[in-house]
Amino acid sequence: MNLILLFDEDFVDADVVSLSGRRLQHVRDIHRAQVGDSLIVGKENGKIGLGHILDLDKNHITLKTEFTSPPPAPLPLTLIMALPRPRVLNRTLIAATSMGVKNIYLLHTNRVEKSFWHSPVLGETKIHHSLVLGLEQGKDTVFPNVYLRKRFRPFVEDELPEIAAETRKIVAHPQNATEAVAERTQPTTLVVGPEGGFIPYEIEKLQTVGFRNLSLGERILRIETAVPVLITKLMSQ
Amino acid sequence: MNLILLFDEDFVDADVVSLSGRRLQHVRDIHRAQVGDSLIVGKENGKIGLGHILDLDKNHITLKTEFTSPPPAPLPLTLIMALPRPRVLNRTLIAATSMGVKNIYLLHTNRVEKSFWHSPVLGETKIHHSLVLGLEQGKDTVFPNVYLRKRFRPFVEDELPEIAAETRKIVAHPQNATEAVAERTQPTTLVVGPEGGFIPYEIEKLQTVGFRNLSLGERILRIETAVPVLITKLMSQ
Repeated sequence: MNLILLFDEDFVDADVVSLSGRRLQHVRDIHRAQVGDSLIVGKENGKIGLGHILDLDKNHITLKTEFTSPPPAPLPLTLIMALPRPRVLNRTLIAATSMGVKNIYLLHTNRVEKSFWHSPVLGETKIHHSLVLGLEQGKDTVFPNVYLRKRFRPFVEDELPEIAAETRKIVAHPQNATEAVAERTQPTTLVVGPEGGFIPYEIEKLQTVGFRNLSLGERILRIETAVPVLITKLMSQ
Repeated sequence: MNLILLFDEDFVDADVVSLSGRRLQHVRDIHRAQVGDSLIVGKENGKIGLGHILDLDKNHITLKTEFTSPPPAPLPLTLIMALPRPRVLNRTLIAATSMGVKNIYLLHTNRVEKSFWHSPVLGETKIHHSLVLGLEQGKDTVFPNVYLRKRFRPFVEDELPEIAAETRKIVAHPQNATEAVAERTQPTTLVVGPEGGFIPYEIEKLQTVGFRNLSLGERILRIETAVPVLITKLMSQ
């Protein structure tokens, strides 16, 4: 927790918050903070600043806040990924959020197991919790939008062209990779396939709406590793 | 498992292996392979090729193997990281191994909790298992060396100069970052700190032996994300 994310309901006064639960525990056990210390705080979808500890015991912590800086710039990259298996979805959401991705689409493809869509990790509360962890990690306050799209073809035909308009269109797919990574960061829409990859039909559909294949080389990476690596390749200055 | 890693003890004949347990389960449940299919296999620290399924039932799988290609090139990067907390150590080892890192040092620093060194995840069998998973993921066969170093100063003073000789020397540390990322891949020694970062004394010691600070920007990443991102930045062509 490199930043303590604060929500409207935490405020007991205009500039004073009272926290309990996970955030209190973290401040006590990991930060080992004491009355008088200051911690980095941020307001949900708002500014970043400091929270000065007024009071701290085992049931609550009270902070006087002042918000001074804007959150870090969002990454100009929209991430569209085949829904990963539940145990890696959270980690991948945390990683993408911590890197500043603000729009994430989870997509059904041929090789996504249907059962993944019934996992509790897709519940709104679970996803929200992963986003909170990602924001706290990346010292950010602005929540990404996470969209679930269970039908590949209507998504690619009807929605994707507008999402990807005026951006570099990249699909992470090793075969017939044609796209060299450009030198400079530019707005990008990145599509990442499932374990086992896209089927040829899906690649054709993506190519029809302007996507070009990008290879990461002969090694294949886990989704929670591949996403940060791809973002780094595409977004480095 | 993008490659099935085979060990000497798996061979029941010069070119025939018999497997059970985890690898059998994976071939049945994930690959859903059948007699007659071919799977990508690799020999421990050796070549890569195909395994043709001669026989498959719920207790074992028999493959006739032929090894034709060398494993992928190792990454010319030595990774030295402050020992992460147990629950992320395995994931970070898998990620680094899947990307081709061949020399990994786990180092004690001031902000590494001493208890981490007593975790069962540091057992030889556990570490070996993470390396196997990383190699299977990255389609590689060559095991990384993993070294444990519990004393920071003797390591940096006596061992590190030789490890890092003739390589670019980088420490991931945001303050006073001076090192711009070079355009082309070159042999590199990368040092990554613990949660909470290095203390000033440690940074000074590393600078004394030639290390320069590299910043990833204002966002802070989890170790299992930071390592792949740093490797990508330093090793991209």
